[in-house]
Amino acid sequence: MINQDTIVALATPSGAGAIAVIRLSGREAITIADSCFKSVRDNKSLSGQKTHTIHLGHIIDGVKTIDEVLVSVFKNPNSYTGEDVVEVSCHGSNYIQQEIIQLFLRKGCRMASAGEFTLRAFLNGKLDLSQAEAVADLIASDNEASHQIAMQQMRGGFSSEIAKLREELMNFASLIELELDFAEEDVEFADRTKFKDLIERISFVLKRLIDSFAVGNVIKNGIPVAIVGEPNVGKSTLLNALLNEERAIVSEIAGTTRDTIEDEISIGGIGFRFIDTAGIRETKDVVESIGIKKTFEKIEQAQVVVFLADSTNLKEESFIKSFKIEIEKIKNKYPQKPIIIIANKIDKLSDFEVKTIMTQFSDLHLLSAKTGFGVEELKDKLLSFVNTGALRNNDTIVTNTRHYDSLLKALDEIDKVRHGLEIGLSGDLLAIDIRQALYYFGEITGEITNDDLLGNIFANFCIGK
Amino acid sequence: MINQDTIVALATPSGAGAIAVIRLSGREAITIADSCFKSVRDNKSLSGQKTHTIHLGHIIDGVKTIDEVLVSVFKNPNSYTGEDVVEVSCHGSNYIQQEIIQLFLRKGCRMASAGEFTLRAFLNGKLDLSQAEAVADLIASDNEASHQIAMQQMRGGFSSEIAKLREELMNFASLIELELDFAEEDVEFADRTKFKDLIERISFVLKRLIDSFAVGNVIKNGIPVAIVGEPNVGKSTLLNALLNEERAIVSEIAGTTRDTIEDEISIGGIGFRFIDTAGIRETKDVVESIGIKKTFEKIEQAQVVVFLADSTNLKEESFIKSFKIEIEKIKNKYPQKPIIIIANKIDKLSDFEVKTIMTQFSDLHLLSAKTGFGVEELKDKLLSFVNTGALRNNDTIVTNTRHYDSLLKALDEIDKVRHGLEIGLSGDLLAIDIRQALYYFGEITGEITNDDLLGNIFANFCIGK
Repeated sequence: MINQDTIVALATPSGAGAIAVIRLSGREAITIADSCFKSVRDNKSLSGQKTHTIHLGHIIDGVKTIDEVLVSVFKNPNSYTGEDVVEVSCHGSNYIQQEIIQLFLRKGCRMASAGEFTLRAFLNGKLDLSQAEAVADLIASDNEASHQIAMQQMRGGFSSEIAKLREELMNFASLIELELDFAEEDVEFADRTKFKDLIERISFVLKRLIDSFAVGNVIKNGIPVAIVGEPNVGKSTLLNALLNEERAIVSEIAGTTRDTIEDEISIGGIGFRFIDTAGIRETKDVVESIGIKKTFEKIEQAQVVVFLADSTNLKEESFIKSFKIEIEKIKNKYPQKPIIIIANKIDKLSDFEVKTIMTQFSDLHLLSAKTGFGVEELKDKLLSFVNTGALRNNDTIVTNTRHYDSLLKALDEIDKVRHGLEIGLSGDLLAIDIRQALYYFGEITGEITNDDLLGNIFANFCIGK
Repeated sequence: MINQDTIVALATPSGAGAIAVIRLSGREAITIADSCFKSVRDNKSLSGQKTHTIHLGHIIDGVKTIDEVLVSVFKNPNSYTGEDVVEVSCHGSNYIQQEIIQLFLRKGCRMASAGEFTLRAFLNGKLDLSQAEAVADLIASDNEASHQIAMQQMRGGFSSEIAKLREELMNFASLIELELDFAEEDVEFADRTKFKDLIERISFVLKRLIDSFAVGNVIKNGIPVAIVGEPNVGKSTLLNALLNEERAIVSEIAGTTRDTIEDEISIGGIGFRFIDTAGIRETKDVVESIGIKKTFEKIEQAQVVVFLADSTNLKEESFIKSFKIEIEKIKNKYPQKPIIIIANKIDKLSDFEVKTIMTQFSDLHLLSAKTGFGVEELKDKLLSFVNTGALRNNDTIVTNTRHYDSLLKALDEIDKVRHGLEIGLSGDLLAIDIRQALYYFGEITGEITNDDLLGNIFANFCIGK
């Protein structure tokens, strides 16, 4: 499985920047780097340098100097992949990046495939499989919650919980299998009461992990919020108001600008995906009714609905009437779905007008995206729909569908074992179910694996990681 | 001038990638990094580590772990800026990048302004001004020629040529000024014949450098080529054919795709900017005549015109007639501008048809973008319009408008000195012109500078460089 060849890839985002980093890993990494590197400070080759040291010099291709670079040397096993690793920090021009990569390819490297550095780290025992998967999650994380979960998983929080259960179960499995060797003597090495306790404990943990997937999945992918409202009711202004308070500093740093409504916004560290929809007014127009169908489809996908109206329109009785009809339609179609009804541009109304409108609705959220009035309260409302308890308690949260599937299967086997214990099933039959449960545990952390599975997992990585 | 505060910026391109690098520079760089770094391997602080070493650990914000990172330590004066520098190599998620930068800002860094790292390198004497400018050119370079010139300039090729002349001139200036002290004794310390020789030599070099700007400027910005042709004559296919041969491997690496015609393509290491234009047929339609006006404007800007026709149309006599009229119009309006007339899709014609068409034109370039026929010859033709002599001879080429201006002014002063020598001008008057010439030399390499000039130069850098 472990490839012996030396791989190369751009490790930094593509595009021009101050610097770019090109990474090599494999048996020949240092030799290949040496063949195109000339140190500025001394004439020592990179292979003569200590691990974790940095060297200023030039990348040269024959007589041509490609760039002045800093080269970092990591010697196996003290590197990300566990192999010899060289990182070349060059000037961030696309041309230079490509020239250096092509030079390394000519010198005997091959292009790394997606996630191949991390795959090698896994194969060399630097990370288990769930930790390796967390690396991709960490890079994809764009808010505090998803970052926190990925970080916890990468640091082994999830793996160690699974590994501990697996070890205990393995001990019992061994004892029970030992009994089989002495079958004729009818001994019980494995204390059945203690074993039942363990099975209960495992079952409890598995259920908690499985339950955590509901919130984990939503945190990883962002909470979908359908935002219903016609043009000019202030959808963009509202989303910018939500965005700016949270990310004012970020915007300043990264020059964030928002043009589209369909984007993710981090509120209280949780990602919310806002899905723009048109209204759902009564219509006979074919084109419009397609729009309404789409609106319903988007509401279907959403976890929360935000219905936005322009307060100045709410002064008209006819508008209120049709607005209420629209709300009722959504409520009838999706009775379980939380809906927040917002009167935006409240700053344009007099106090009296506001009071009059309030009498018409039992649950109207007053808001002025422009002045910021009601924005904070809206955030609290949105957050109230997310169960962040597990997050706050720093519990392990499952975000990965593959882990979720394995946990479900493991629980299924554990239930069989429990049932087996209850009906006094013979050791040899119990052992089969235990082995199967162990198999699913092993799938999560990667003790049990195969090329297809690894291929699927690492295909989702970016190249260079 | 030198700021004492510690600056921070993202040094890699923005966006998600395998890794990102955040760079700190300044007196507190190591102390600040230490305040949020916890080593994995030992408990030593970064300030206790040697320069040019790398350390695995975590960036922590109070109890929260933001990321597992590699931290590189560079101690002054052995760093890019000449100050203490720390580079944090973190996972390339936008969220993590921003969290780490914000943490450093809270710990006392401030955001670096554009080019501030390189500005500090200049102010600390690590680079002269023309070398610093070459850093930005190097990052912007996207073909072999512009890369080669920027690299040569960054490595001091241009500066050393200027510096040598400046030193020789300075010696003479000193001697002449010494004469002034002994004015009553009527001595000549500065040998006038040798001085004339030097002035001739300087004048010769300045003229060569000034002349090189014509090619340098074009190489830096790409050679503009207007590509005239209606939709479906195969403009995109042609440009892809030109692109693919040159950059097949690049495409594979970077996943390059071309959607637009208006893009730069590197041919033989030189950048060509292709400018898409519609045709210029006779028309009475107002909208169309606006299009024709625009076509002429674009041809005006171009250095070469490529006129593309679909060979299958050239079988019709009426088409040939109007095609020739169009060509004549361009030739009449721009008699000096080289024009390449191309019959594309030649693979669709029989040999006989090709011969018939050939008789109609004196200078038709036969091409099949699809099969690649004639593509190589087209490249040679395009390259023949670029004077690459200086490039091949590895001569210093001026690409920077600021340098060009200073060189022109320096030459002007040198001419005055020459004239002064010819008419036997007194030493005190000669000295004034010499000092002025020295001033312009100094402007190029940065011995003479001011805040406005530096502000203008470094504003063109990216943040993080």
